[in-house]
Amino acid sequence: MYGPSIDRLITALRVMPGIGAKSAQRIALQLLERNRDGAAELAASLIDAVDKVGNCSSCRTLCEGERCTICSDSRRSAQQLCIVETPADLFAIEQAGGYSGHYFVLMGHLSPIDGIGPEEIGLPILEAKLASGEVDELILATNLTVEGETTAHYISSRARAAGVAVSRIAHGVPLGGELEYIDSNTLSLAMQSRKVI
Amino acid sequence: MYGPSIDRLITALRVMPGIGAKSAQRIALQLLERNRDGAAELAASLIDAVDKVGNCSSCRTLCEGERCTICSDSRRSAQQLCIVETPADLFAIEQAGGYSGHYFVLMGHLSPIDGIGPEEIGLPILEAKLASGEVDELILATNLTVEGETTAHYISSRARAAGVAVSRIAHGVPLGGELEYIDSNTLSLAMQSRKVI
Ligand SMILES: [Zn+2]
Ligand SMILES: [Zn+2]
Repeated sequence: MYGPSIDRLITALRVMPGIGAKSAQRIALQLLERNRDGAAELAASLIDAVDKVGNCSSCRTLCEGERCTICSDSRRSAQQLCIVETPADLFAIEQAGGYSGHYFVLMGHLSPIDGIGPEEIGLPILEAKLASGEVDELILATNLTVEGETTAHYISSRARAAGVAVSRIAHGVPLGGELEYIDSNTLSLAMQSRKVI
Repeated sequence: MYGPSIDRLITALRVMPGIGAKSAQRIALQLLERNRDGAAELAASLIDAVDKVGNCSSCRTLCEGERCTICSDSRRSAQQLCIVETPADLFAIEQAGGYSGHYFVLMGHLSPIDGIGPEEIGLPILEAKLASGEVDELILATNLTVEGETTAHYISSRARAAGVAVSRIAHGVPLGGELEYIDSNTLSLAMQSRKVI
């Protein structure tokens, strides 16, 4: 429609979640009309991030370098291990404050229909952690969705088999809600009122 | 928050219209977690488009090469010249069908408060076109906003000074509406029922 380069850009923009055909067209044209420096910086930062950002070898969250800042922080306790689905969820709990243990980031949840089993969400690494004896308490902070609950159930049975106490982040998080969109107070309260399960 | 490369990407994503802080964070994390190939293709297509896309030497719309496909099309008449604010507006009129003249794309509208005067919207080029005698009718299809109307008024006075007939795209386009979001039927009708002003 607009020529091969613009059409290619419009298609490429749709890779972003929440960007449909109309938004992609609008963004492509506005960048080319008004902000080519911004477009070039966006390209450079995408290349930079794809190149430098990997996963923490200990907790799997997105990070630059071998281990993330949380896993590298000696003031934090490795005895508590909080399980979240995504780096954004980890970030939401950090923003809420009050938690000083470690995390384990599943980078998703169990979803057999999509071919996502225990391997895909890093459970062999988690089981090795539990077997090492350094973890006293596993805190499940997966989302309160069907998949999140299924994943929590599966992980809690593995943790109990390894003799590790398991708790679930308290209700207060609205049903079906996604952690990263919940206000800090609710999330902080939910962390504090977790119950042994 | 997430490390320099991710933070840089989140900032860079906000260059896109309609993308706020929360959306930028969500997009950055999702691309890095799930679609690095898509992110790399987006970067490549941005670089490609910034490199190859310029403005048509005749009508100023975004295009690759010296002249756009419309200005290069010998079946189209240069006697009618439709003035639009943006390439997206041009595209909307083309999609509506029924118009076979040429366009002139202002790439904006007059806005003295933002330092956008006649030069910035290409009016010297337009005046040269009008002075050449090849244009019989100027059709004003700027948006029905204060700035769009002001711009139309200014251009119509210059066209009349050059002895060129001027018409304004018919009402039917809702007030304050933006051309690119209007359905093709309304837009086509508005083109057909334009009035000499
Ligand atoms: Zn880590
Ligand atoms: Zn052209």
